[in-house]
Amino acid sequence: MQLTLPGMADMKGARGRRFASGLNPDAADVNASINFDWRLLRHDVAGSKAHARMLARCGIISQEDAERTGEGLDRVCAEIESGELALDPALEDIHMNVEARLIELIGEAGQKLHTARSRNDQVATDMRLYVLTEAAGLIERIDALRRALVDVAERHIDTFIPGYTHLQRAQPVRLAHHLLAYDAMLTRDRGRIDDAMRRTAECPLGAGALAATTFPIDREGVAAELGFSAVTRNSLDAAGDRDFAVELIGAIALCQTHLSRLAEEFVLWSSGEFGFARLGEAYCSGSSIMPQKMNPDLAELVRGKTGRVIGHWVSLMTVLKGLPLAYNKDLQESQEPLYDAVETLAASLRVMAGMVETVEFDTERLRRATEQGHLLATEVADYLADRGLPFREAHGIVGALVRKAIERGVELDALSLADFRAESDRFESDVFDWLDVDRAVDRRDVIGGPSKRRIEAEITRIRSELETP
Amino acid sequence: MQLTLPGMADMKGARGRRFASGLNPDAADVNASINFDWRLLRHDVAGSKAHARMLARCGIISQEDAERTGEGLDRVCAEIESGELALDPALEDIHMNVEARLIELIGEAGQKLHTARSRNDQVATDMRLYVLTEAAGLIERIDALRRALVDVAERHIDTFIPGYTHLQRAQPVRLAHHLLAYDAMLTRDRGRIDDAMRRTAECPLGAGALAATTFPIDREGVAAELGFSAVTRNSLDAAGDRDFAVELIGAIALCQTHLSRLAEEFVLWSSGEFGFARLGEAYCSGSSIMPQKMNPDLAELVRGKTGRVIGHWVSLMTVLKGLPLAYNKDLQESQEPLYDAVETLAASLRVMAGMVETVEFDTERLRRATEQGHLLATEVADYLADRGLPFREAHGIVGALVRKAIERGVELDALSLADFRAESDRFESDVFDWLDVDRAVDRRDVIGGPSKRRIEAEITRIRSELETP
Amino acid sequence: MQLTLPGMADMKGARGRRFASGLNPDAADVNASINFDWRLLRHDVAGSKAHARMLARCGIISQEDAERTGEGLDRVCAEIESGELALDPALEDIHMNVEARLIELIGEAGQKLHTARSRNDQVATDMRLYVLTEAAGLIERIDALRRALVDVAERHIDTFIPGYTHLQRAQPVRLAHHLLAYDAMLTRDRGRIDDAMRRTAECPLGAGALAATTFPIDREGVAAELGFSAVTRNSLDAAGDRDFAVELIGAIALCQTHLSRLAEEFVLWSSGEFGFARLGEAYCSGSSIMPQKMNPDLAELVRGKTGRVIGHWVSLMTVLKGLPLAYNKDLQESQEPLYDAVETLAASLRVMAGMVETVEFDTERLRRATEQGHLLATEVADYLADRGLPFREAHGIVGALVRKAIERGVELDALSLADFRAESDRFESDVFDWLDVDRAVDRRDVIGGPSKRRIEAEITRIRSELETP
Amino acid sequence: MQLTLPGMADMKGARGRRFASGLNPDAADVNASINFDWRLLRHDVAGSKAHARMLARCGIISQEDAERTGEGLDRVCAEIESGELALDPALEDIHMNVEARLIELIGEAGQKLHTARSRNDQVATDMRLYVLTEAAGLIERIDALRRALVDVAERHIDTFIPGYTHLQRAQPVRLAHHLLAYDAMLTRDRGRIDDAMRRTAECPLGAGALAATTFPIDREGVAAELGFSAVTRNSLDAAGDRDFAVELIGAIALCQTHLSRLAEEFVLWSSGEFGFARLGEAYCSGSSIMPQKMNPDLAELVRGKTGRVIGHWVSLMTVLKGLPLAYNKDLQESQEPLYDAVETLAASLRVMAGMVETVEFDTERLRRATEQGHLLATEVADYLADRGLPFREAHGIVGALVRKAIERGVELDALSLADFRAESDRFESDVFDWLDVDRAVDRRDVIGGPSKRRIEAEITRIRSELETP
Repeated sequence: MQLTLPGMADMKGARGRRFASGLNPDAADVNASINFDWRLLRHDVAGSKAHARMLARCGIISQEDAERTGEGLDRVCAEIESGELALDPALEDIHMNVEARLIELIGEAGQKLHTARSRNDQVATDMRLYVLTEAAGLIERIDALRRALVDVAERHIDTFIPGYTHLQRAQPVRLAHHLLAYDAMLTRDRGRIDDAMRRTAECPLGAGALAATTFPIDREGVAAELGFSAVTRNSLDAAGDRDFAVELIGAIALCQTHLSRLAEEFVLWSSGEFGFARLGEAYCSGSSIMPQKMNPDLAELVRGKTGRVIGHWVSLMTVLKGLPLAYNKDLQESQEPLYDAVETLAASLRVMAGMVETVEFDTERLRRATEQGHLLATEVADYLADRGLPFREAHGIVGALVRKAIERGVELDALSLADFRAESDRFESDVFDWLDVDRAVDRRDVIGGPSKRRIEAEITRIRSELETP
Repeated sequence: MQLTLPGMADMKGARGRRFASGLNPDAADVNASINFDWRLLRHDVAGSKAHARMLARCGIISQEDAERTGEGLDRVCAEIESGELALDPALEDIHMNVEARLIELIGEAGQKLHTARSRNDQVATDMRLYVLTEAAGLIERIDALRRALVDVAERHIDTFIPGYTHLQRAQPVRLAHHLLAYDAMLTRDRGRIDDAMRRTAECPLGAGALAATTFPIDREGVAAELGFSAVTRNSLDAAGDRDFAVELIGAIALCQTHLSRLAEEFVLWSSGEFGFARLGEAYCSGSSIMPQKMNPDLAELVRGKTGRVIGHWVSLMTVLKGLPLAYNKDLQESQEPLYDAVETLAASLRVMAGMVETVEFDTERLRRATEQGHLLATEVADYLADRGLPFREAHGIVGALVRKAIERGVELDALSLADFRAESDRFESDVFDWLDVDRAVDRRDVIGGPSKRRIEAEITRIRSELETP
Repeated sequence: MQLTLPGMADMKGARGRRFASGLNPDAADVNASINFDWRLLRHDVAGSKAHARMLARCGIISQEDAERTGEGLDRVCAEIESGELALDPALEDIHMNVEARLIELIGEAGQKLHTARSRNDQVATDMRLYVLTEAAGLIERIDALRRALVDVAERHIDTFIPGYTHLQRAQPVRLAHHLLAYDAMLTRDRGRIDDAMRRTAECPLGAGALAATTFPIDREGVAAELGFSAVTRNSLDAAGDRDFAVELIGAIALCQTHLSRLAEEFVLWSSGEFGFARLGEAYCSGSSIMPQKMNPDLAELVRGKTGRVIGHWVSLMTVLKGLPLAYNKDLQESQEPLYDAVETLAASLRVMAGMVETVEFDTERLRRATEQGHLLATEVADYLADRGLPFREAHGIVGALVRKAIERGVELDALSLADFRAESDRFESDVFDWLDVDRAVDRRDVIGGPSKRRIEAEITRIRSELETP
Repeated sequence: MQLTLPGMADMKGARGRRFASGLNPDAADVNASINFDWRLLRHDVAGSKAHARMLARCGIISQEDAERTGEGLDRVCAEIESGELALDPALEDIHMNVEARLIELIGEAGQKLHTARSRNDQVATDMRLYVLTEAAGLIERIDALRRALVDVAERHIDTFIPGYTHLQRAQPVRLAHHLLAYDAMLTRDRGRIDDAMRRTAECPLGAGALAATTFPIDREGVAAELGFSAVTRNSLDAAGDRDFAVELIGAIALCQTHLSRLAEEFVLWSSGEFGFARLGEAYCSGSSIMPQKMNPDLAELVRGKTGRVIGHWVSLMTVLKGLPLAYNKDLQESQEPLYDAVETLAASLRVMAGMVETVEFDTERLRRATEQGHLLATEVADYLADRGLPFREAHGIVGALVRKAIERGVELDALSLADFRAESDRFESDVFDWLDVDRAVDRRDVIGGPSKRRIEAEITRIRSELETP
């Protein structure tokens, strides 16, 4: 079924009788937003229903009209969602598609729906409802990924992995500690999205096209009914404000960047050179010509998609730069970046959770890696400091020992006591006790450190956070 | 018709028997590129046909197989373009969709098509063919806009308009001169796109997955047949090179920025305050509640879309940053920015050409505008310099005269000779002859200047350029 | 005085005896950060003093050493700030410059300062202290601009200005209402900066290089002393986390974008065509050759600098993309974008406040502007709706009236009653009462609307907010 | 020596007598560009000298004045470069600093220099001269890096390295082949910079402030003298054109991205896990607490600085978006991104050349790496294809063999013939001959392939290119 609305012909694109002619076809293509704003359907219907009820409460339309409008809107929504009603690009956007069909269905009552409202405040309301809904969904998916991380972390409390700086092995830590670093990032991401929601939860309905409305409407009532916590305070601002989209996209971009870091590690860990982990086959692809290949395609895609969402933030910011008040059509360009950013992060979070759940670690290889590369050199310096040498001097002595070990192609613990004592006579045979990974890790027993006690406490803390709604 | 390929089942996604299981469904959604890479269909078919012919020429497959492959590919192309054959997301991309159907149609001959080729060099070839085709199309549209500009310029050689700096009226020029400034920008844009094409015209076919091929193929032959002017020189580079996309998107972004400047001027000129121009109704929209509105929506959209293409460049550059050789899956993210940038500029150029063709200028109001705002103050300073006063001193004297005129709310030519002489006794009554817009403009008779003679010469030069193929 | 530290020679750049040679000179230039990280001086000193006191409290160093260290650090700070001590690029960064001089001054006690600390957690702490300090300063400057806006708004409650959409006159509003739209934006900016501070206020001291420390330090104590509200929860995350910089730069970029909108309006309003406002001369520049020019240079610069801060966000995000845990040297590139973003917004806010305080409006011209361009067309449609006509039909009738008025070159109130009635017989002579700007504005009496009552209430609300600390 | 120019007081900032007051101090800080545009000094002097000579040739000033001006300018340049003359921020920019000192030195002749010129065309000319000079310097540095790469490549023609896709070992190649992939990228970069220079080489002198000049100047003469190849064709465009900066920054950003890829490989190769290469100590740093550390800081910085130059392109593009003709002060913001991009790439190229020259490869470890990870699986598939099996079927068989080998923890050549024949009876004992790295590489003997013959030819070709001026 295609909308065919003889009576609406001159309404298309809100041109009215001010215009003698229609849009140029190329222009119409550029102008229409229905290809992407269909995502607002449910929010548009919810917003219109609440608006109609409010109009009736305020005596602006009859109770009966409000009811017929509500029923009509539900039907339009169902028709579109089922595919029964095809969206018409000539009606430009989802709002006009819905309204046109509503009028077709219920007649004059439908024509009253737009009372005390403009497309400007209507679109702004719909977009905010979209943000509130989707942001909540993103938070859920973030938490799902956090759950996956903490589950794997718990299984790997006693797995050791080299901690790196500059991609050079630095000091050993527990794999659980490494994985929980991402929990810290995701917790901040969650907080940022939550803050964005808080600022989004102001209802612009009633701002009109730019200068509010002459009708005695109940802005706060309709806002509350739609789940907003407040109303916007300036109609000129509200009509042209897309800060809420910028803020959410910014938070999404940073979250995606965090995922890109984990993805990078998955790529590294599953390389032949690292060999630390085997990604689940369900997240890998092969090669059309190399039969041996099992490539971490999904990790790479998640990493690559960071560019996409960073680009979306840039797009929107560039659109906003230098726009005078209030609404300018440029703002139509704010929608696609928002939708794509939301959908990209949502998909990436879900895929990443699956990857985390299915990754298998080669715990022996990880352990061996912590025993190569002189990761305990700091312990030896500590040993000397413990025996009263200033740290800077100890640092120099151990540097020389490392150099010697590398020249011989061995690890520090393969040097003889004589080798040690050639650099400093404070070394005794107990220095070899210090060259132990477990000991080195568990001595790091401060908040945020990798000792077993601290990791267990962190896991408990995070689980409890995840259980709180 | 949907592709159902029992025999191809384990080929899907090139997994082969290396894998025990399929892709996770969420992962498959993220992994598939068929939603956007269908744009490569014709290029893929052209590339494969040339490849098959070359394989036959080199004795790698039979002549007959090459012919059957060519016919089969044409049929697949037709089936897909007509909608007869639906694209299957499970086959990931357009290349696998085409190949699977080809094998279904012609059997074993089709299975030989992928000989001496990998998806990596195949995709790179297709994308370059896309760029070469679309870039040529963009150049045509740029020239169409240039033609529209020069047509309007020619009609307005004798229309005067204030030249601005800082959006303050500065010196009068001809409207033709103003419009031709955009010809200068578009000519550079054209040159950049052309240079990008030149660098794109190197054929990567034969680079294989990363390390070329063991088959004795004729890279230069297939390149020439496909219209490339050379072959790439390093297989590792060629497999992972997306510079051609970056360069085209960069050129597109700058061209769109130029359009944004013209769009901004259309918005300004059609405002009530400027009132310099009336945009064609076919490029304007109305308001759902304000009956008087005729808004320059298309100009605003063209301006806003600048953000979009700038964002695409950022996306792609961020994707590329820090990627090791050779192909990484992140590169799949290079396609959508490219396609959308091309399509955005193509649509914007066409719409802008239509706007230029239909805009009407209020030549009287423009003329009046050149007579207000002291645009001839520089002439008066020149007058004094002509009479031997150092320019810096003359500048100061005229500054004081302007201040006096503003205080009285009049233009300079409404001051009396006594007013002039109060500031400098070098003023004689002939100073008023200098306060003439036509004279001021035509004295600016150097290359690139606004004098009638120069503008006419420019129009001739540009027309001749546009006639040269 | 230049630092010359024979004994520190092999400490330079933390190379130690692990290295046989020094940095290549070109590399040293790229590597040094002292050209920009001198901004951390005070924070570095504060952080080190608190660290030393904590070490003493925990019995790791003596009370006396802590005191000598504190005094020494104060002296180093004073020497550097007075210019007495020149910073040495060979010591790479501010941290090494301070420490080297400290050791020179107080000897072995100074060598103990770095106990239980790494440059990684030290830099992260300093940067967070910088953010907390500067973000608070930005909030103050935002509030100063808000004060300037509300002052001007209060003076212009009874000044009318055309409200615009699409830069086309739409409906009249009060100038106060227009200005307060920026208060709404700045209030959100303020909130975002505040949220960024909240997330920044976690102290990373104790995270060490990446794996915390083996010393039994009191992380929470030193955090509280430095004004942090919590400690970071994961050492690997904390060492490589620059989210706090991203978030602040993002908030800054959006605030600068808001300033760019106001700047754009200043540019428009001070143009000859609008003529709505005269910017203070102290914020304008002239031309080297055009004596009449008074250009809104500062507004243009504030607008242009939006690009700068957007670019900084992009820079930092691109740096972070795909970095594995924990610290990577790429992160050094996070500092300059942060500093420049902070300083750009700080300067822009101050300049913008000055511009707001000194701008003068041409209230008569503004009033006249509200009376031209059919801004009251919506009122006429409302008139008909009030008389029972469906709004859509009323909209069409008024569109036709506007078209008629434009053809005659007059405003709606210059049409005769006969003209009105030719379109609809519901028009009576009282329609002319509706064509009144004051009436149209004051009927818009909802929260966020431009009626006098609402504007006064808003001013009261905002003033009260600004008085609350 | 500080410029103190009583007579110039009212010239400061080109305010003239049009203004009653000076700039606000905060505004002056934001307005001044001398902190960065000092880089234009030599170009400004060269441009002014050529301008003065041309004015004399055209009879606009005397020959004597032109000579005194030239000598004066040389002296000003020397004074500033030696530090004898301090730059004065109150004079805003380098152009006014030079001119003010010139007038102080030579009097009235100096006052005539600005005849037929405006700061707008002067700045545009200086910036273009800067671009031409610096771009040529970048090309030299690119070629120096190419020379370093080809030198190392030549030494490593017979070193084998795993070729990767998706960071998974794919097929073996020669190290020379891998390194020369960067030559291909750098050659394109060079071409883009060269094209940018070609478009920059149009002289804007004579465009005046926006509307050219009334003086009968010889634009083409002065252009030729300054090394430009043409003159700009439209004064309005020329005054506000910064395309040349955008284009160069774009080319720089892509080149820096290429360096980021090589940097990433250096980071990977020098990790303990890869162990392929040892970076020169002169390009590494240590750790303040971990004595064993030798970190690839410079590679990381080069990689990180990619964000910086990408950000600069974004900044400039955002500045340009939506600016009306002709010059707007926003364009002042085009300078810093340009300078920093140039300097960043210049430093990065030099550092990278040093890193390439000093890196040492562990050729044995590289060789071993090519023998692990089933890199010859494609050869086995080729073996079967050679024996008549369709490639797709062969691919599946080898995939199963790889799976078997992985389960046993061995390479393909450790499987028995029986193992091979269990999958396909076409396998004969000669299959083991195919499992040879040298053979696999040298069979890939097409243009762009890794065979010894092709690599040697490439090295010859590149050397010859580098010798051509």
